[in-house]
Amino acid sequence: MHIVITGGAGFLGARLARTLLARGRLSLAGAPERDIERITLADRVAPPADLAADARIASAVGDLNDQLRGDGAAFWREADAVFHLAAAVSGECEADFDLGMRSNFAATHGLLETLRALGTRPVLVFSSSLAVFGDSPEQPLPALIDDHTLPTPQTSYGIQKFIGEQLVADYTRRGFVQGRSVRLMTVSVRPGQPNGAASGFFSGMIREPLAGLRAACPVPDETPVAIASPARTIEGIVRAAEAGNADWGARTALNLPSLATTVGEMAAALERVAGRAATDLLDRTPDATIGRIVKTWPGRFDTPRARALGLVADERFDDVIRAYVRESPDAVKLVIRA
Amino acid sequence: MHIVITGGAGFLGARLARTLLARGRLSLAGAPERDIERITLADRVAPPADLAADARIASAVGDLNDQLRGDGAAFWREADAVFHLAAAVSGECEADFDLGMRSNFAATHGLLETLRALGTRPVLVFSSSLAVFGDSPEQPLPALIDDHTLPTPQTSYGIQKFIGEQLVADYTRRGFVQGRSVRLMTVSVRPGQPNGAASGFFSGMIREPLAGLRAACPVPDETPVAIASPARTIEGIVRAAEAGNADWGARTALNLPSLATTVGEMAAALERVAGRAATDLLDRTPDATIGRIVKTWPGRFDTPRARALGLVADERFDDVIRAYVRESPDAVKLVIRA
Repeated sequence: MHIVITGGAGFLGARLARTLLARGRLSLAGAPERDIERITLADRVAPPADLAADARIASAVGDLNDQLRGDGAAFWREADAVFHLAAAVSGECEADFDLGMRSNFAATHGLLETLRALGTRPVLVFSSSLAVFGDSPEQPLPALIDDHTLPTPQTSYGIQKFIGEQLVADYTRRGFVQGRSVRLMTVSVRPGQPNGAASGFFSGMIREPLAGLRAACPVPDETPVAIASPARTIEGIVRAAEAGNADWGARTALNLPSLATTVGEMAAALERVAGRAATDLLDRTPDATIGRIVKTWPGRFDTPRARALGLVADERFDDVIRAYVRESPDAVKLVIRA
Repeated sequence: MHIVITGGAGFLGARLARTLLARGRLSLAGAPERDIERITLADRVAPPADLAADARIASAVGDLNDQLRGDGAAFWREADAVFHLAAAVSGECEADFDLGMRSNFAATHGLLETLRALGTRPVLVFSSSLAVFGDSPEQPLPALIDDHTLPTPQTSYGIQKFIGEQLVADYTRRGFVQGRSVRLMTVSVRPGQPNGAASGFFSGMIREPLAGLRAACPVPDETPVAIASPARTIEGIVRAAEAGNADWGARTALNLPSLATTVGEMAAALERVAGRAATDLLDRTPDATIGRIVKTWPGRFDTPRARALGLVADERFDDVIRAYVRESPDAVKLVIRA
């Protein structure tokens, strides 16, 4: 089995690749498991060293739109499954409209057209986002989002993801691909460097203090957030690829499970895990740009469809922090409480 | 004031142009009324003779995607309002995927990009469709569609229209245009020739018998349908252009009002208006292709948002037929009952 991961050198892409390599086998859309022979990581940068060292990993470094043009990229033809994670993130798309339209709108359409032209009908998992839901004075979101809630995106990123979902649904209905769209929740704790996502501080406010660094907490404590750990997020992405058609059901995007919490509760969890030494490093400096985006996102979901697929949310954010500490020991300088 | 109507030589486009010419003045987004100096009808064919004879009408004959490329089309720059009605219709888009993606997806995106590049911020009314709602076994529609119902399109046409709505919403939020999307109901009775719309028979089953011609009635009598007369439809489109921002409210597309009826009730109305001589001309021959599309569409709407804008549905289909008879006397051969 050949797999392509767009955005494959990014945090989620690389973690997905490691998960798949560790398993060694995968079922696609309910078919029997098969060995994973190759995973191509398509990204603008080279993959992390551990992945590059694995014989089953191939790297395709370049711009996704370029890789979709012409006839250069043989890996599309061989792909039994494509995980489409590449995207410009929310803050970037709000700051640079053309970047988002190119990286999210045009690239997703281009990927679907490339796969359709090949006629290979691969499984395609598209990573959408809770950002398709946007609260506004003219159209307030319900307090609890469920599987039937109408998305009314309030960011260009959310619109672009929602359009991607629609394209994936129709290319699937027409039989061009076997598409499944999953709406990722706010992923925390992400390791590594901050990116341009407006949600970036939801990781930074944990990661940086644990590393002994000051971190911004740019929105009020009571700001609600629907969190999923990296592990739960990858679980959802893999389940989307594996589920049989009958189990998967509707072509509408699936809301992945999330832990409903708040910025204040996250800070309290950080203090329980790493003490005042950690929370003393939080700078509660409001950022209007980030606040404007984040406050439109919903914080509370009911996800019966995901539950029926066996997907569950993280139970306690303390455990999410502890998992990060276990997985990123080199990035943690503070003393962790037992 | 300069106005552009894409699809301006089509039935709805021409009727809209006649309505605007008769009024002579228009308010845009709540601003004071101004005189209409020019209406450019952009279409692949020339406008009807009555419109071509009006000094205020300009005609731009060509493919919309071509008219959006390059720097040839000065009418975009001068437009205070654009009514974007041009589209490939449902049956065509299902039969020819590329045609729909070019005529609906690419053209709507191209129009928005053209207007954005000009920086003129015109009012843009986008004609979407009830076809964004699609019933399926995996995701049944509710019995009553309201302003918060999640669209789950089951046709390529519905997907393309729904994507158009999202683009219009974001280009509006960003301030590139002043967009308003209206979801048209099934328009009946359309005069003239049948087109490639799966919904075409909803007009043909009335229009052809009235002309003394046999007509297909390709779906069961109990098939529900949400009907709007041409007059009510144009009313909704004009109201969308005129409404002030506060009245218009959310950037989500507006469901226009409709009369909930069935194919059987429409035939009964035809018989009341024109007798058995009319209904004897109906051929009840099932058409699986049309049936597959039409059965996914909803028949019953509650439209409080449209009501608040003063928009109402037709009350009786008999009156809709009689209005058609009045407006198209040359196309009616049967004797009409008083």
